Amino acid sequence: MTPLNAVADLLAEVGPIDEAARDAALERFAALATPPGALGRIEPLGAQLAAIAGSCPPPALDDPGLVIAAADHGVHAQGVSPWPQAITAAMVQTFCAGRATANAFAGIVDARVTVLDVGVATPLADHPRLRRSNVRPGTRDLSVEPAMSDDDCARAILAGAGAAEELLSAGSNLLATGDMGIANTTAAAALIAVFTHEEALDVTGRGTGIDDATLARKVGAVEAAVARHRDDEPLGALAGVGGLEHAALVGVILAAAAGRVPVVLDGVNACAAALAAVAIAPDCHGYLLAGHRSTEPGATVALEHLRLEPLIDLQLRLGEGTGALLAIPLLQAAAAALREIATLDEVLGS
Amino acid sequence: MTPLNAVADLLAEVGPIDEAARDAALERFAALATPPGALGRIEPLGAQLAAIAGSCPPPALDDPGLVIAAADHGVHAQGVSPWPQAITAAMVQTFCAGRATANAFAGIVDARVTVLDVGVATPLADHPRLRRSNVRPGTRDLSVEPAMSDDDCARAILAGAGAAEELLSAGSNLLATGDMGIANTTAAAALIAVFTHEEALDVTGRGTGIDDATLARKVGAVEAAVARHRDDEPLGALAGVGGLEHAALVGVILAAAAGRVPVVLDGVNACAAALAAVAIAPDCHGYLLAGHRSTEPGATVALEHLRLEPLIDLQLRLGEGTGALLAIPLLQAAAAALREIATLDEVLGS
Repeated sequence: MTPLNAVADLLAEVGPIDEAARDAALERFAALATPPGALGRIEPLGAQLAAIAGSCPPPALDDPGLVIAAADHGVHAQGVSPWPQAITAAMVQTFCAGRATANAFAGIVDARVTVLDVGVATPLADHPRLRRSNVRPGTRDLSVEPAMSDDDCARAILAGAGAAEELLSAGSNLLATGDMGIANTTAAAALIAVFTHEEALDVTGRGTGIDDATLARKVGAVEAAVARHRDDEPLGALAGVGGLEHAALVGVILAAAAGRVPVVLDGVNACAAALAAVAIAPDCHGYLLAGHRSTEPGATVALEHLRLEPLIDLQLRLGEGTGALLAIPLLQAAAAALREIATLDEVLGS
Repeated sequence: MTPLNAVADLLAEVGPIDEAARDAALERFAALATPPGALGRIEPLGAQLAAIAGSCPPPALDDPGLVIAAADHGVHAQGVSPWPQAITAAMVQTFCAGRATANAFAGIVDARVTVLDVGVATPLADHPRLRRSNVRPGTRDLSVEPAMSDDDCARAILAGAGAAEELLSAGSNLLATGDMGIANTTAAAALIAVFTHEEALDVTGRGTGIDDATLARKVGAVEAAVARHRDDEPLGALAGVGGLEHAALVGVILAAAAGRVPVVLDGVNACAAALAAVAIAPDCHGYLLAGHRSTEPGATVALEHLRLEPLIDLQLRLGEGTGALLAIPLLQAAAAALREIATLDEVLGS
């Protein structure tokens, strides 16, 4: 089977969320021993979780899994980041060693962590936590040519889906997206510009913290990429301007939707991948939750386009899945509300 | 010893947080393998936790404890709430049975839950989770006379402090405030008006959901109470217009500060108690964290006066400690960031 055919098979497994379960959840919330509306956003959140699972109450979501997709970027050569490319591999090793921020936050919510090498340029040593699915050693330079071929893009999608499916098989009932890739906010901005039709200037941010001259180069690179790919069909646009880790996160999202589990998005890179995923498979929209609002401007543009309201806003812009991990207890609380709270009738009868 | 003398002894144990530990934490954050500023509000949060503990890194905050202080209110007779007073006792039984929203959320963060009867009007059956410190069966009507005597107010403060100290002795290293009391948002509004000098109309909200006529009665009750007590010294003002559960939460805050542990505030009732606590013992301010932004208008007025930025904003207005519990993983994440993340030097040397 070709990679593109395998992606088509995955897409065929994605169906809509269950609106009847959502309605049942809203009815349950109305009967609980809480004043009407007092649970605020916990109610629609719990109802979405019921719709995703196709049952009310939803499962406890007590076994989260994080995929950190890591890859390098040809556009790094344009001087869009102050960090050397080798940081990508160094951070992959740090994830494997359990010493990165994502590991610290994963510990708080007891999340499984898979580190996925889908395209790191620097050779990496084996590690039990490292899943090796290196499609190519980084993308080509998106500012001058397509970042990857459609076939490589499909391979990266399948790599992400495979990592997600492995977590689901191990027992995870909730997935979170993480990313690592020096220069990947350039590719994220290009994806967001292509899929939302907003201007490069409005969706391109300072990423890890860049000066005005670097930002100008970054906007220029995004503009050049968008000009060549703005009219492509979705997978072609993803291949043309995206990163291998963005394609992998599309795979994570598709696998979550196919598996009927919620997928919590992290920041600007996850939002860029989500735009591509929804363009490729509109039904996967219902499985998405926005973990947090990154300070990157493209994240807010993407969230508005996706009609997603973030759960956390602590001015994070780190990536790695950190903002997604912090939101997981809120999903667990919403599920627990439907599973555990007494009804008003029960309280008055007690 | 008189109750007022015992409160004075407790106040003597409250000292300022440790600014040197805060500085050490900020230095540590600057050295971590994260781009400058990328951790957003996690950095000042972690630094405050270090300052509270007096050490960098701070402890893991892995054993949270919640005190739900419950009491009734004489002002209920003025028709300020659509709920019968007996709901207070029914909800206390529901907390004891583990079937309320606070229990569901406490389960997510593995928090110990103490239910404190500091002034419920309805007689309650014994329960292992129920701490009996009933000072009187509800306050007097704050709209026509002082809600309680200074002595009863001191007894309620000591009851809350006792419940908090019991949790700390059992191992809790982080406290959260919860409240239950039909009509208690009327007393909370009066406390907020007295301590912030804002108008009753601007700090009085719809609580569990009341109509315009009820809101007008509620504002009138708050205005009458404030007019009589606006110039009282802090403990007298708390006794004059507050609830027994507000006084108990003042005790929880004082005990947390005396024990050098963070105390996470829930919504409008906790914020009202925090205003009183800070007026009584200014040093306890450093130990306070705002769990969430309640939709009650008085909560936002109080938070601004306290210069506290809430961690969560999910439009909750339930009380019980629910908004405080949801914020606990964010505190744990901030502590873990200081305890576990590698420095940039470590990453580059690896």
